[in-house]
Amino acid sequence: MKVKVFLFAILLLGSVTLTAQRRILNIPDIPGYVTLKCDFHSHTVFSDGEVWPTQRVGEAWRDGLDALAITDHIEYRPHKDFISNDLNAAWKIAKPVADDYNLILVHGTEITRSMPPGHLNALFILDADSLDKKDFMKVIEAAVKQGAFIQYNHPGWKAQQPDGIPRLYPVHLELIAKGWLNGIEYFNEYETYRNATVMEMCREHKLAVMGNSDVHGVISETYMEPEYTHRPVTLVFARERTMESLREAMFAGRTAVWYGDSLAGFEQFTGPIFRAAVKAGVPYKDDGKNIFFNITNNSDLPMKLTGGPEGAPAELTLPANQVVRVKANKRYLEQPLTYSVSNIVTGSGTVLRAEIPIPLK
Amino acid sequence: MKVKVFLFAILLLGSVTLTAQRRILNIPDIPGYVTLKCDFHSHTVFSDGEVWPTQRVGEAWRDGLDALAITDHIEYRPHKDFISNDLNAAWKIAKPVADDYNLILVHGTEITRSMPPGHLNALFILDADSLDKKDFMKVIEAAVKQGAFIQYNHPGWKAQQPDGIPRLYPVHLELIAKGWLNGIEYFNEYETYRNATVMEMCREHKLAVMGNSDVHGVISETYMEPEYTHRPVTLVFARERTMESLREAMFAGRTAVWYGDSLAGFEQFTGPIFRAAVKAGVPYKDDGKNIFFNITNNSDLPMKLTGGPEGAPAELTLPANQVVRVKANKRYLEQPLTYSVSNIVTGSGTVLRAEIPIPLK
Amino acid sequence: MKVKVFLFAILLLGSVTLTAQRRILNIPDIPGYVTLKCDFHSHTVFSDGEVWPTQRVGEAWRDGLDALAITDHIEYRPHKDFISNDLNAAWKIAKPVADDYNLILVHGTEITRSMPPGHLNALFILDADSLDKKDFMKVIEAAVKQGAFIQYNHPGWKAQQPDGIPRLYPVHLELIAKGWLNGIEYFNEYETYRNATVMEMCREHKLAVMGNSDVHGVISETYMEPEYTHRPVTLVFARERTMESLREAMFAGRTAVWYGDSLAGFEQFTGPIFRAAVKAGVPYKDDGKNIFFNITNNSDLPMKLTGGPEGAPAELTLPANQVVRVKANKRYLEQPLTYSVSNIVTGSGTVLRAEIPIPLK
Amino acid sequence: MKVKVFLFAILLLGSVTLTAQRRILNIPDIPGYVTLKCDFHSHTVFSDGEVWPTQRVGEAWRDGLDALAITDHIEYRPHKDFISNDLNAAWKIAKPVADDYNLILVHGTEITRSMPPGHLNALFILDADSLDKKDFMKVIEAAVKQGAFIQYNHPGWKAQQPDGIPRLYPVHLELIAKGWLNGIEYFNEYETYRNATVMEMCREHKLAVMGNSDVHGVISETYMEPEYTHRPVTLVFARERTMESLREAMFAGRTAVWYGDSLAGFEQFTGPIFRAAVKAGVPYKDDGKNIFFNITNNSDLPMKLTGGPEGAPAELTLPANQVVRVKANKRYLEQPLTYSVSNIVTGSGTVLRAEIPIPLK
Repeated sequence: MKVKVFLFAILLLGSVTLTAQRRILNIPDIPGYVTLKCDFHSHTVFSDGEVWPTQRVGEAWRDGLDALAITDHIEYRPHKDFISNDLNAAWKIAKPVADDYNLILVHGTEITRSMPPGHLNALFILDADSLDKKDFMKVIEAAVKQGAFIQYNHPGWKAQQPDGIPRLYPVHLELIAKGWLNGIEYFNEYETYRNATVMEMCREHKLAVMGNSDVHGVISETYMEPEYTHRPVTLVFARERTMESLREAMFAGRTAVWYGDSLAGFEQFTGPIFRAAVKAGVPYKDDGKNIFFNITNNSDLPMKLTGGPEGAPAELTLPANQVVRVKANKRYLEQPLTYSVSNIVTGSGTVLRAEIPIPLK
Repeated sequence: MKVKVFLFAILLLGSVTLTAQRRILNIPDIPGYVTLKCDFHSHTVFSDGEVWPTQRVGEAWRDGLDALAITDHIEYRPHKDFISNDLNAAWKIAKPVADDYNLILVHGTEITRSMPPGHLNALFILDADSLDKKDFMKVIEAAVKQGAFIQYNHPGWKAQQPDGIPRLYPVHLELIAKGWLNGIEYFNEYETYRNATVMEMCREHKLAVMGNSDVHGVISETYMEPEYTHRPVTLVFARERTMESLREAMFAGRTAVWYGDSLAGFEQFTGPIFRAAVKAGVPYKDDGKNIFFNITNNSDLPMKLTGGPEGAPAELTLPANQVVRVKANKRYLEQPLTYSVSNIVTGSGTVLRAEIPIPLK
Repeated sequence: MKVKVFLFAILLLGSVTLTAQRRILNIPDIPGYVTLKCDFHSHTVFSDGEVWPTQRVGEAWRDGLDALAITDHIEYRPHKDFISNDLNAAWKIAKPVADDYNLILVHGTEITRSMPPGHLNALFILDADSLDKKDFMKVIEAAVKQGAFIQYNHPGWKAQQPDGIPRLYPVHLELIAKGWLNGIEYFNEYETYRNATVMEMCREHKLAVMGNSDVHGVISETYMEPEYTHRPVTLVFARERTMESLREAMFAGRTAVWYGDSLAGFEQFTGPIFRAAVKAGVPYKDDGKNIFFNITNNSDLPMKLTGGPEGAPAELTLPANQVVRVKANKRYLEQPLTYSVSNIVTGSGTVLRAEIPIPLK
Repeated sequence: MKVKVFLFAILLLGSVTLTAQRRILNIPDIPGYVTLKCDFHSHTVFSDGEVWPTQRVGEAWRDGLDALAITDHIEYRPHKDFISNDLNAAWKIAKPVADDYNLILVHGTEITRSMPPGHLNALFILDADSLDKKDFMKVIEAAVKQGAFIQYNHPGWKAQQPDGIPRLYPVHLELIAKGWLNGIEYFNEYETYRNATVMEMCREHKLAVMGNSDVHGVISETYMEPEYTHRPVTLVFARERTMESLREAMFAGRTAVWYGDSLAGFEQFTGPIFRAAVKAGVPYKDDGKNIFFNITNNSDLPMKLTGGPEGAPAELTLPANQVVRVKANKRYLEQPLTYSVSNIVTGSGTVLRAEIPIPLK
């Protein structure tokens, strides 16, 4: 109705509304780590976004995220005639609400230059105002001194890279050499063009593979069913669900990207996710030649299996959170049943190879 | 992606996105008038809302509205440390986008006082800044001089009226006597308590019956399927789809309210809507005693018929935009088939009585 | 609950349930003809289907169809140990319910031979039992004597035609020469492979282009949102909605096929459908160089426009029953705005070319 | 396409279709038992149903059921002119498919008499033909000799009990005395009228509380979203997922009923379900007076909490598979936070009282 500061007020009063509930994003933890779901790139009215910072917090909480960064542009502020010039305004407004909802709010900003170097997010900063200076390297240096994780954003964005091919320019290599570049966006908004190049850059330079929404409008209007069931997120494999663990894991490169119906990440992370999610059941029938058994995919990520071995289904889609029945030759009680997982990208031209063990009892 | 002023930019470039399409709200025109779908109560970041003014325009366009008023509070501006103190800011930002999309943008504001007089919207104003003064009557007088239509908002809101019963206080009667009050909200946001009282106030004082969203957050998150298929709107029966015709019709009281699965309005307007939407087909079977025929409801408003006559269905729901088959005694070829339409409210304790003629050929 | 003959019983008693309503399929009529929506290929438990004939009638009625044929196999009856050997059983059971619901029930059967000739539906027959004989040509002759329309089914079905290419064999050409073959399925179930070949066969031999579900299971489980919004149907352009008009139109080849998001039919039928569905509005803005206007698609068929002329959107999707805003050079007030409609197939390698006139007033 | 025996054929060939996947019904196991989801009442074309037995098996498998009984009427067979008079036909057809899919198919039938005794299902029978005799007690005796579990069906069905009040007649009491009545339907199809009476009958006579679909049409058309997310099922708390364990648990009365958004069952079963599903998280904020924490409902059953204690939300809905944030007085770190669960019925006029412990670490 009227005169309410924000939607959350309703919950504070203890009642529950349609939207005041938090979804569970079902991507399993992996041995040794919790899998945090994070969006490290978003905008508000304080740069060129359409929403107030509290809306971003509410969206992230309802979407089941563990961490969010609001990263308004420093250099591009088309609303500036109508808003405060405090570059920390979004942070100041969002932080108390995030605390009330146990959302890890990462203080961030987007350093917005023409190519090269293009756009870079500084995450885990202390003060955005001090990053509003001309000299690019000085800005990065200042951010790094604040403890920032620096992410190179949407390197294949056609407005900046007309052929769509992600590239590292000398300035980026210089940053890498100094330890001032820590991650690259493999995925941004809806972007899929030539991403896999980014995986190889990250592998070579030991950077974190990142994926974020870069949302400007409303999240639920940007990623709508049936086309999208969730926003793109960076999965961070952290020791625990704290700001410190999150930061440690990112600097250590323990990340993957979940976008649309796909996952991208190095095998050391995506392999354990697959194995945690996909389980075959004990065969319930043996007709002499074949065994019949179920495979359950206990995750929100469908698994698209291809290249099945002889005597087993050549292709098999394991829908999210569902069970599929399989009939396969008895030999797979003794030898591994191995597939390529076509929607889990592990590098340029490579996808996850995964074994599905069939239990005897 | 990044650095885009607003979602519409995409359309301006000529391509089409998921959200860049306009829904058609199927409520029929009535003889002599077009039925305009309007929301005369909404907020942005410039008072206590969560979105930028262009988001409101985009929502209204996609929702199929003909007219929208942004009505930020004059006296209640919790974001004021971070935003401009220009009370016309939302209007200035929204107007060019509305023009590009052929949305009738009504310049408005919400005069926000404690009870009485409570909250009143001034619609069709020229300048909100000049309405920021202490003396309530002077403010209304100034608005009226600008040509404003004055709407008394959510008269049963419990924060202001603890028993939930809408009342006209002496100050309201004084406004009415001067011709300075022109409509009352029968419906606001999700509010249904004791609304029918408002219909009688409007009938007695010849005021327009109004219904609006009073949205603060995101429209698509406030009214979600399956519970809500559309936001609440004021239907205005105008000579044509122009700002001038809209204004004329509102001052003349030619309005109704479509909220949830219900309609509220005087019989002179709701009767013609029912007759335009609901049509029986020629009976296709006659078994000697009964005739079999279809009834089509060509509107987005389901019709809930009760109190059917003998030999016809006692109750009959005509779902929106669907066909229902009916079997009824042959006598209804000759005498009227009459129902109460339980979800079309025509006053306090009264609903529409409607005849469905069965055509012979 | 229990002991009810079929779901419709509920309606007969005059009350209404969730499923007892009929959807409106919004494909417009064309000048001179009503557009009947028909499925001429379906199965029940009396051959290899999973449902009782009354379920087929209920599905067709709820789906908004005008006509349905149940076409159980004569020669393939895997349930025969458990069901009657009366080949007209499905017809006898379904007909009274169809009459109660004003559904045009076409008496049909599927003559089921190996290739060639393959499978052919005989529609508008009088008695299926008399078609249960060995000699194929005698069967067709007998059906034709009953007045049957003969349809060659799924000519590219890989179980019968391993390369998937539809072909007319000598036996089919013999049927055509005698006037004993009247239509060919361009679309069957989910099948899209090499269909366009069928359009050319139909053009050359003056046969009707057909498209049907060939449903064996439950329609609502076979065509589910979001992938499918409706079953595939043959559109028949008939003088009126009667069995006789339907039959006349089919023998005259006045048909098209609506499947998924696409339409296939000769330009003389699909052109008028496009023109009846798609309307530009009067431009509401002129910025000196460009005009701004809406295009409304008043049909359930989205229109995918490609190859737009200079100064207009190169591509434009007009979603079903929605409005899209367009900005185009002013010259299109004077010269035609022409597009290819990529999802309206008019022949092998050809799609509809369509003009969208922009009204001045 | 064509000539396929049933939908499952597709899976047997190793590929996967839209419908060839099995949903997981998320109702937790309870200490000592697995929670089997079962429907013990359904019909096919062999009595008055609309579908072939294999459709029932496919529905049950896709719906995530563990066990299904097909229970065609012995005495009411309106399709008998067109189908076999073998009363075991449905069983014979369905059994091999159920075995291929690891669905526990319970051999059953519905003994269909006028009131009293009304309709009773005999479950776990060996032969339905031998139960087709006139004398009711003899029929039950024969079923019991086969090992049958006897269920009294829909005791409040208005066609048999016009006032809708479930009653045990002398004949039922006689059955109970002999141990020949083992369960009563608390829920049937959509029926909710006066069910709680049934709970007290079951408590007094130590019978199993049952709830089933009694489906005649298509399951997915009978229980549609958003109104229904699943069919009504009997939950059976069995030692393991086998026919023998199922039977043992039913005779021991270890059952509950999950229907719509509600659960009915004695506290010894519903209490553990609540405790397995609902978990509070460690408080993440303490503002001196209140603690802030999440409550997760890890089940498909929403929990509607009412009667909250002072300093905690008076009402709280825990949506299925979601998280809700709660703010409550610090005292609930030390004393139990107790609610009534209004949608878990434990008897006539009673609902579950449940404590939610708040963990310290």
